[in-house]
Amino acid sequence: MKAVVIGTGLIGGSFALALRQVSPGTVVTGVDTNEEHLQEALDLGVIDEAGSVNAVADADLVVLAVPVHVASELLVTVLNRISDKALVMDMGSTKEHLCLSVAEHRRRGNFLAAHPIAGTEYSGPSAAFSELYHDKKMVLCETEKTRPDLLEKALELFKDLGLQVRNMDPESHDKHLAYVSHLSHISSFMLGKTVLDKEKDERNILDLAGSGFASTVRLAKSSPDMWTPIFQQNREPVLEALDAYIENLMAFRTNLQNKEYQALHREMRQANVLTPLLGQDLITQ
Amino acid sequence: MKAVVIGTGLIGGSFALALRQVSPGTVVTGVDTNEEHLQEALDLGVIDEAGSVNAVADADLVVLAVPVHVASELLVTVLNRISDKALVMDMGSTKEHLCLSVAEHRRRGNFLAAHPIAGTEYSGPSAAFSELYHDKKMVLCETEKTRPDLLEKALELFKDLGLQVRNMDPESHDKHLAYVSHLSHISSFMLGKTVLDKEKDERNILDLAGSGFASTVRLAKSSPDMWTPIFQQNREPVLEALDAYIENLMAFRTNLQNKEYQALHREMRQANVLTPLLGQDLITQ
Repeated sequence: MKAVVIGTGLIGGSFALALRQVSPGTVVTGVDTNEEHLQEALDLGVIDEAGSVNAVADADLVVLAVPVHVASELLVTVLNRISDKALVMDMGSTKEHLCLSVAEHRRRGNFLAAHPIAGTEYSGPSAAFSELYHDKKMVLCETEKTRPDLLEKALELFKDLGLQVRNMDPESHDKHLAYVSHLSHISSFMLGKTVLDKEKDERNILDLAGSGFASTVRLAKSSPDMWTPIFQQNREPVLEALDAYIENLMAFRTNLQNKEYQALHREMRQANVLTPLLGQDLITQ
Repeated sequence: MKAVVIGTGLIGGSFALALRQVSPGTVVTGVDTNEEHLQEALDLGVIDEAGSVNAVADADLVVLAVPVHVASELLVTVLNRISDKALVMDMGSTKEHLCLSVAEHRRRGNFLAAHPIAGTEYSGPSAAFSELYHDKKMVLCETEKTRPDLLEKALELFKDLGLQVRNMDPESHDKHLAYVSHLSHISSFMLGKTVLDKEKDERNILDLAGSGFASTVRLAKSSPDMWTPIFQQNREPVLEALDAYIENLMAFRTNLQNKEYQALHREMRQANVLTPLLGQDLITQ
């Protein structure tokens, strides 16, 4: 199989590594506008060869693993250039905008809108590892618009990679993700900023921050280049989630201000309900 | 050595286990108002024997590992009953209130105000493990008020346990902890509550929540019984920290509302600065 992975960072790089493990004959051509990343991906053996977007012309599989604001335009370019046999998928964190942008494309059937629920706070080719997708969820949107033979090929590949598929319409995907992913990034970024604003003496932060704080601000290490376009594309749902979060924080604040300690206790008890749902394996990751 | 550990949960239980490892002859008497916990601690071998607070009368070491609202009153009771040889320490997350409450006690010299920066989101004797304190920080307050021979004994013990000591006045301790610990618990509790409020269909949460979300809401599993009194005792500094956090979130919201994406990018980039300070070991815990 000839595969082209566009974007050789954590997401694309890990996919390239995993793909070659489950499909040994595969040759992966990496494409990246960041030439340092491209060279690094080559040096690390994340990809087999470096190329340009023209490489998609005779590809069997094209994977778009680029920031979401780049994906829409790039997807049209790719669909314009592929042959009939190609399966094209993206891996972006927003789906509605992308699906709309190619809704009328003559090659719409070659495209599968995908979002693996996997990642770390690190980025770039050096962060890629072949196990990233193992035993993770893969959300697929509008599978009815993907050509059945290509969808089947994709599902077999996901199975081999250890991905568990969930179907969802793009709008629902984006709304849910605003709550369970985008909001926690904002929460973490702003928690980090708040502590930094206050604590000018770094030594005090280091000494008094335990593993709990580290866990809560872990996502503040995420790439602003990746996250700004996600917030931009998913602006309305993120605003709604953020408003709900701020409202809950203000209610907590009011209760604390008014010494309503039983109410505070009750609110925390309510939140306790959530974590068992996530399961032990998620919590300890 | 005869040690009495009052409160046989995660903090006290882990201390009891570690204490017996570094000081093999030690007999640990456990005291707990929760009789199930006490029996469990005994059954699990976390303590050697169960007793009452009267056991402190001939103890060499007394460790208070109880919720902070219980600690003040209990500390006075303990100091009233110990012999001259006893070292008494607490392990609470707030320090100013407790230090004030025994400032004039005739046995003030027997007391050492301590706070190990260690914990997990779990609680109870079954959560206790002997390595909890290894390579962690131990904040000590007002060490000048502890009798020098007892302080020296404590410092030797902490060294044996792998704890690294930091000295800090109680007021500074409480203010800093409001930012690097108490605030992240509120952030996490309310993030959990926000998602639960919105997502009534649990399956969607489970499917779309990745390890990032799990990391950010990990602390929402913490015990409201333990945390309500912490917020109560550290109310003013926590309100200040919470206000600063809400202000940052609202600024983020305004920028998103106004499509000021460069400003969002800048704020996230600022928060990126924090995480390297915490070090790799903390982040991955």
